[in-house]
Amino acid sequence: MMRQARVHRLATKAPDDVSALRQAIEAGHIDPRGIVAILGKTEGNGCVNDFTRAFAVSALRSALADHLEPESVSRIAYVMSGGTEGALSPHLVVLERGTAEPSSSPALAIGSAQTGDITPEAIGRLDQVEMVADGVRRAMADAGIANPADIHFVQIKCPLLTGERMAEADRRGASIATRDTLKSMGLSRGASALGVAVALGELSIEDIPEAAIGNRFDLFSARASTSAGVELLNHEIVVLGMSANWCGPLMIDHAVMADGIDIEPVRAALKRVGFVADGQLSEAERPRLAALLAKAEPSSSGSLRGARHTMLDDSDIAATRHARAFVGGVLASLVGTSEIFVSGGAEHQGPNGGGPVAIIAERKEGVFA
Amino acid sequence: MMRQARVHRLATKAPDDVSALRQAIEAGHIDPRGIVAILGKTEGNGCVNDFTRAFAVSALRSALADHLEPESVSRIAYVMSGGTEGALSPHLVVLERGTAEPSSSPALAIGSAQTGDITPEAIGRLDQVEMVADGVRRAMADAGIANPADIHFVQIKCPLLTGERMAEADRRGASIATRDTLKSMGLSRGASALGVAVALGELSIEDIPEAAIGNRFDLFSARASTSAGVELLNHEIVVLGMSANWCGPLMIDHAVMADGIDIEPVRAALKRVGFVADGQLSEAERPRLAALLAKAEPSSSGSLRGARHTMLDDSDIAATRHARAFVGGVLASLVGTSEIFVSGGAEHQGPNGGGPVAIIAERKEGVFA
Amino acid sequence: MMRQARVHRLATKAPDDVSALRQAIEAGHIDPRGIVAILGKTEGNGCVNDFTRAFAVSALRSALADHLEPESVSRIAYVMSGGTEGALSPHLVVLERGTAEPSSSPALAIGSAQTGDITPEAIGRLDQVEMVADGVRRAMADAGIANPADIHFVQIKCPLLTGERMAEADRRGASIATRDTLKSMGLSRGASALGVAVALGELSIEDIPEAAIGNRFDLFSARASTSAGVELLNHEIVVLGMSANWCGPLMIDHAVMADGIDIEPVRAALKRVGFVADGQLSEAERPRLAALLAKAEPSSSGSLRGARHTMLDDSDIAATRHARAFVGGVLASLVGTSEIFVSGGAEHQGPNGGGPVAIIAERKEGVFA
Amino acid sequence: MMRQARVHRLATKAPDDVSALRQAIEAGHIDPRGIVAILGKTEGNGCVNDFTRAFAVSALRSALADHLEPESVSRIAYVMSGGTEGALSPHLVVLERGTAEPSSSPALAIGSAQTGDITPEAIGRLDQVEMVADGVRRAMADAGIANPADIHFVQIKCPLLTGERMAEADRRGASIATRDTLKSMGLSRGASALGVAVALGELSIEDIPEAAIGNRFDLFSARASTSAGVELLNHEIVVLGMSANWCGPLMIDHAVMADGIDIEPVRAALKRVGFVADGQLSEAERPRLAALLAKAEPSSSGSLRGARHTMLDDSDIAATRHARAFVGGVLASLVGTSEIFVSGGAEHQGPNGGGPVAIIAERKEGVFA
Repeated sequence: MMRQARVHRLATKAPDDVSALRQAIEAGHIDPRGIVAILGKTEGNGCVNDFTRAFAVSALRSALADHLEPESVSRIAYVMSGGTEGALSPHLVVLERGTAEPSSSPALAIGSAQTGDITPEAIGRLDQVEMVADGVRRAMADAGIANPADIHFVQIKCPLLTGERMAEADRRGASIATRDTLKSMGLSRGASALGVAVALGELSIEDIPEAAIGNRFDLFSARASTSAGVELLNHEIVVLGMSANWCGPLMIDHAVMADGIDIEPVRAALKRVGFVADGQLSEAERPRLAALLAKAEPSSSGSLRGARHTMLDDSDIAATRHARAFVGGVLASLVGTSEIFVSGGAEHQGPNGGGPVAIIAERKEGVFA
Repeated sequence: MMRQARVHRLATKAPDDVSALRQAIEAGHIDPRGIVAILGKTEGNGCVNDFTRAFAVSALRSALADHLEPESVSRIAYVMSGGTEGALSPHLVVLERGTAEPSSSPALAIGSAQTGDITPEAIGRLDQVEMVADGVRRAMADAGIANPADIHFVQIKCPLLTGERMAEADRRGASIATRDTLKSMGLSRGASALGVAVALGELSIEDIPEAAIGNRFDLFSARASTSAGVELLNHEIVVLGMSANWCGPLMIDHAVMADGIDIEPVRAALKRVGFVADGQLSEAERPRLAALLAKAEPSSSGSLRGARHTMLDDSDIAATRHARAFVGGVLASLVGTSEIFVSGGAEHQGPNGGGPVAIIAERKEGVFA
Repeated sequence: MMRQARVHRLATKAPDDVSALRQAIEAGHIDPRGIVAILGKTEGNGCVNDFTRAFAVSALRSALADHLEPESVSRIAYVMSGGTEGALSPHLVVLERGTAEPSSSPALAIGSAQTGDITPEAIGRLDQVEMVADGVRRAMADAGIANPADIHFVQIKCPLLTGERMAEADRRGASIATRDTLKSMGLSRGASALGVAVALGELSIEDIPEAAIGNRFDLFSARASTSAGVELLNHEIVVLGMSANWCGPLMIDHAVMADGIDIEPVRAALKRVGFVADGQLSEAERPRLAALLAKAEPSSSGSLRGARHTMLDDSDIAATRHARAFVGGVLASLVGTSEIFVSGGAEHQGPNGGGPVAIIAERKEGVFA
Repeated sequence: MMRQARVHRLATKAPDDVSALRQAIEAGHIDPRGIVAILGKTEGNGCVNDFTRAFAVSALRSALADHLEPESVSRIAYVMSGGTEGALSPHLVVLERGTAEPSSSPALAIGSAQTGDITPEAIGRLDQVEMVADGVRRAMADAGIANPADIHFVQIKCPLLTGERMAEADRRGASIATRDTLKSMGLSRGASALGVAVALGELSIEDIPEAAIGNRFDLFSARASTSAGVELLNHEIVVLGMSANWCGPLMIDHAVMADGIDIEPVRAALKRVGFVADGQLSEAERPRLAALLAKAEPSSSGSLRGARHTMLDDSDIAATRHARAFVGGVLASLVGTSEIFVSGGAEHQGPNGGGPVAIIAERKEGVFA
């Protein structure tokens, strides 16, 4: 028997809708004991006061508690990303590990790890970079992948600063990186992404001055996707890659968009995993798409290919919401469905204004990564 | 000498930025006497309390007053569409008419007309449909186009109901179609679009029950683009088509998106006007794109190809803003620039959830519409 | 032994924070078996996509399930009102019934009832008015109050229309009152309030034409407070009044604000329950305030005492959010705390632009209602 | 003849509505040559992308250009403050200077000054504090007030950082205080307020470390009101005080609210200028109120008198908008009108979470400041 990764995409009707998950478990399509991580797009604003993420996690934990021991429920990484702007569709992506008779290989491999709780004053600083890098290495070990080149996506859920956490640090006389809650999300995402870059050998920790976090966007990981949430104090890490030790029909590949409309690298990646991708995926091809995972952000320059954008100057709608909606349209039009995982805030995740895109697909006969 | 249409796309730095227009006039690239209409994307929310549109119009009028008599300034149709969500870029599209030595023909033709002021109680009702249909016919006559099939785009700016206008109708005992200002924008856009459909022969006025306005979205024009603004009480109408009586390098064609990610009809239209359009327009091709004009809206079904969207249930961000951002991404990724005119609120403009797209391009050698 | 009502005001740190409730139960301050209703202010937008209400209810149910049988948990009315705009502070108001040695009387009395599920097409219509009136009468009977004049506040949680519920009605060919989700909240609140007016004899059902719902704001209840939420399909009703059959330290009285800054009726009510209320309640007086429950809304005229307001024309912030923040300031400055229950959307609850205010206070020696 | 200050409060129907100003000038109630400053509340969000302020200024300048030479139009300080949240009502406050036969004295005195343009890198830093302090001293000299104790209000309009201004500083290698446009508004307001404190002797420049700007809110002016806008690059300063060299019916006094519901100091100030102020100003008293000018802001502690508020954690509505709506309600309920000038962002203007309030009123017989 070999290890096998399975990916289930489940539509939700509300942040706490776990009916599709329950059905999949009851029908035997998902073995809850094998669930490593659940990624989800929820309906909130994806910013500080987005409680849909915690609500979803609460519902997921409650549903899984009917099938698993408490410690097994807690071992799963719940990576809810708020914000289904534009036509982005709320859904869950369940990542499951099991075993199967040896078949097509190499195949998708999944690993996970968690860090310990982080102090408010470490958020957005080198301490966070190192804490995450260590966690990524442990997640790779968990997946049985030794070569960083075989990793195509690292999803991290990281914490943020709230008024209360700032006050707690103040009481201890600890200096925090920012007093702006929304900004703290960006710093935490950025430091986490740089942690991925360090773990994957894209950057060396010596290359990253502390002041570069949230500033020097030429420093980035091409495979990190990080998401900040008010509901946790540590980091939940999931790595996705290809491994000859795993088998099954699923493959993964990735692309890096240089800016918000840079579709050619994504089309190339779609082709590498066997799609025609001449224009939009055809109706016949679409079922083979297991999941699309991407990051989006506005370029800090305030323009896209020389054309001014207004995302950073908008005080009514957070810039991350604009970017998710826009890049959501770009990517949905390529794959023909808006049930894709586009997460905002791509600081140090891909180049400034661009972002990484991972594609998980069922193998077409004869296509290997 | 023959009639010739010219189209100028000018970036703006703020709603009242007319510096590029002034420069183009001073450099002789634009003859202000020939300006028929100025379309603009401005930074506001595109909804009721969007004052960026009026601010832009005020600045444009003031700039043009340095070159034109007051009545000439007022004769121009100012069609500002608020909302540059996502990476959409604020800009102006100046439509100019002049004469030239006969050259390539048929070519882009431009006509315009205005209706009289509409009463609050007529907004969103059959009276508005007929008022607009009559205006479109006059604009076609102005363009010298007799065959409705030669019309590819009709842009209309229409009024809306505000608290004050409602109160005024109340005082007269007149019954208005809605008490919701945001909803009144949709009704006004919808009735105007149905007016286009009637004028172009896509629908007969007998086919349109009054109750269908804002409800029966199977009734639509494939070539209407309507935009509501607080700053006017009448309708400003511009028709764009192809005519053998006009000459010059510009062509126009149109597509109808069946939903928000229906890119194939747009790619086909891009090819018809001579672009390669295999993936994104190349850097070399892009300068030939004079303008892209489109409408976007969320499907009233609440889903896109079966995937639930949340645009209609979002009380923080208006649905039109979501749709502009998303479809803005879809279309920008096709043409390689975010300086495109995507306007929200496509009621009765293209099918439910989809919308019309017009492409104005410089002719490639040998390509005729 | 006599019946006795108890009111507990508990601060929350998040929508799902039930720690103060747990502590109060564990310390014996609250007997969960006596809880009739829990009112709560949560951090959401108070509009259609406010999931903080359901999240709060989910957490409350889960916490109470540790102490009560499932049917007892479900019998409690959970009336979460989203929106803590301005400095309004998230908190819970737990209404409990018990028995005690006969003491001060008359005293606060509490009754509750629930209706059956309502169909989408009945929302905002006379059917809803009658359904609610019937429910209020049953809640009065539950409180043992026969005379409607002894009722000072009726709190109702009612459902709304979502995209899905509309589609469901469409499939059955049923005609719904509106296609606008946000508007459906107002219609449901309004019809519910008129149901209260009918039950309390403030209006006769014959006086209410169906078209008056959401339009004729001269028809109203002075004691209704209704709140719409996506998380329920029926109505949860709680009545609060004074009764000689109940004893204890708590009293209730109410005032009706004629507009958003009409503070004199509130000051008079504060005085009736024994406060000095010359300016703001003093620090010494404040602990006697058990709860302040109020409704706020923008006047549909678009002005307040002749001064134009912009709440109804704002497409960035819902009018109900503006009104809660503003009236929250008005009332908080009277009582000296922002931990007050101000709920938005006061359609048919008090006069147009105004709203009812109930004050529950510990009796000062010698003060009787 | 003596100097005399006049204050005109004019309702507006839109940001560019200057009809009331035109009428007042034509009726001879306002002599445009005497206008020193025009304060205005406009309908925008009061944050970075609020173009209603510039639109209002554009309309005011245009209207005044019919009566004044260009340099006179430019000499006037236009202090538009965006944000009419809650029921706050858009209006203008025109401050005019003239001469009159000697009458009641001391009386309201008005002075003004402008600074030169500030560089992006000086915003939010000590350079800005000193630049503003110098400007305030010149405005006092302009008013003929030597004793800082006679100054009751200093209104300043200051610039902010936009994406473009940041990029400009970047090109020069200059380091800016923040990359967050919204945050830059707070830093600019704060540094300007500290400049007032220095000029009025409330603080010494030596007491203000650069790092205190935007952080040490125990350092503040009790009489500063500063407002940031995208439309200017320098500072416009207006001082209001009492002077024996001025005569006329108007008086000014001020109060400092310690927090957002601290009404007693305001009631005391209302009494000092002759109002009964027992509860709300009566209808008979209200016409004597010429203007109320105030600042509002959320406390950085995240709570108000121990009750948690959510303003700082809200990513949908800017904290300044929440605070204006809430404090707008507090103050409108005292004076009985919502046509009051409540401006957001009170960094270093009054204590943390509180703010200064100035009251300009017609003298009641026998009342002197």
